[in-house]
Amino acid sequence: MHLDPEGDPAGMDGSSGTEPSWAVVDGTLVPLEEARLPLGDRGFFFAESVYEVALGGRGALFAWDRHRTRLVRSLRGIGLDTGPALAGVERALQLLQPRMGQRPMLLYVQVTGGSGPRDHLPPAPGLAPRVYATLRPFPTAALVEARGQGIRAITVADNRWPLATFKTTQLLGSVLAKRAARAAGADDALFVDASGHLLEATSANLFVVREGRALTPHTGRNLLPGVTRAILLERARDLIAEADLRERDLRDAQEVFMASTTRPVVGVTRIDGRPVADGQPGPLTRELALRFDSWLEAEIGLRVV
Amino acid sequence: MHLDPEGDPAGMDGSSGTEPSWAVVDGTLVPLEEARLPLGDRGFFFAESVYEVALGGRGALFAWDRHRTRLVRSLRGIGLDTGPALAGVERALQLLQPRMGQRPMLLYVQVTGGSGPRDHLPPAPGLAPRVYATLRPFPTAALVEARGQGIRAITVADNRWPLATFKTTQLLGSVLAKRAARAAGADDALFVDASGHLLEATSANLFVVREGRALTPHTGRNLLPGVTRAILLERARDLIAEADLRERDLRDAQEVFMASTTRPVVGVTRIDGRPVADGQPGPLTRELALRFDSWLEAEIGLRVV
Repeated sequence: MHLDPEGDPAGMDGSSGTEPSWAVVDGTLVPLEEARLPLGDRGFFFAESVYEVALGGRGALFAWDRHRTRLVRSLRGIGLDTGPALAGVERALQLLQPRMGQRPMLLYVQVTGGSGPRDHLPPAPGLAPRVYATLRPFPTAALVEARGQGIRAITVADNRWPLATFKTTQLLGSVLAKRAARAAGADDALFVDASGHLLEATSANLFVVREGRALTPHTGRNLLPGVTRAILLERARDLIAEADLRERDLRDAQEVFMASTTRPVVGVTRIDGRPVADGQPGPLTRELALRFDSWLEAEIGLRVV
Repeated sequence: MHLDPEGDPAGMDGSSGTEPSWAVVDGTLVPLEEARLPLGDRGFFFAESVYEVALGGRGALFAWDRHRTRLVRSLRGIGLDTGPALAGVERALQLLQPRMGQRPMLLYVQVTGGSGPRDHLPPAPGLAPRVYATLRPFPTAALVEARGQGIRAITVADNRWPLATFKTTQLLGSVLAKRAARAAGADDALFVDASGHLLEATSANLFVVREGRALTPHTGRNLLPGVTRAILLERARDLIAEADLRERDLRDAQEVFMASTTRPVVGVTRIDGRPVADGQPGPLTRELALRFDSWLEAEIGLRVV
């Protein structure tokens, strides 16, 4: 099944309708559908931008310190100034956090290299970064469905640039991989590098259960160090470890699951048309999903599923 | 020296000031600085967009058929529908061509996967593509300067995605390479792939003169098939051919030059700090630049330099 962030037509709490969606552009709060950006934005012309997605509720953001730290790392990774960018992000959060109410919301923040005449090389000393943020209802229904059915995945050759370790908007490779998955009757794609090593899904980290332990590819390879991945590694270190994994390790896996902010622990039940083990989300996957949900509830005071 | 597309403060025809710059958004003509796009554009979120840059004057576009053909190829390459995209491009051209007057102008056209809620996977059957176009004065002064002094280049490892053959806005690798060039006191970077093969510059094709002939990397490798490159290969086939070139072929080159729409034949005079031959644009480079300028003048009725 396909995780549609616009899902959740009726909330799991029984309410109908969705929370309004908001955006912050240039430090101003506007309804999401009214948000605009200048045609000269370097994020639009050159994919010169980085982003974060975080989960919020009751005015709080889950693991925001980690997202903020990674945002700084991504900004530095593509050579953008961090100071003005972070000030803009703080301003956006001030405006959006009061809108995080009784239902889980997704915060999206994108920082670009600024706006100016189209030229690969920005002027020196540089343009002011631009900050865009949106706040939308968390796709609860889609997560519930994914948790129940599991994800059908295909394996694909890594078609991204070599700096996928930074969370930039150079995402067309992931888009094409996800389209290829849909064309194959699947939901998502798992990237495999030229040496046959497993990397990650198109927008989630990957975990392979072997001998009762979940192993996830280490970040020395071309993959994004996920916040959800880091929390799992830290808080469930009895059950999860980093490892060098190859595509062939999928074949005799006891379980496979993926994890991201919008998909905090979801089983992968079919890969390239073949079931993983018995084709159902496995016990370790279910256990870690429950644990993660409890951490979310403790920190933002809301159940996400 | 750095090719600033905003250059040309005084026209080479002696006029002062610049032509006004225009944009077309959603089929409507607006001054460039007023052009906006929706925050939900997939070109902004995912770099899901392709583009073309063409040279115009006196209401005519140079080699537009080739640019249009390549645009179709790029659209197909990333799985976007061509019909509505081309209709939008035609509409933009109708609005902009009357603004191509007595001085050379640069047309920029960008087609995106449309606008919608942020989700890697677009809805099926798909969003309507969005077309953006701008018309700005051609950077004549910058070209004249580059032709006179030549380009100082560095070599860098190819840091792009494997589909650089399509003209998409996944350009952050080129931006970073150009920034690295500036940091090294140079103007541009030449991409070298993992096997040591020469590819192209950050936004121009590359030519290496050996034994009196210009050789340019063939398009089987990860590079963009340039329109200027194709025209040179076709009309100067006595002097230019495709070849497999390695980084080491730069060392004993008689001349090196690059070619693109904004840089139609410009000498590369220093590479990684060492002069190419005598460090001046060579005779074949100058000869081909003159030829190209004459073709431009014949087709758009204007001298660009």
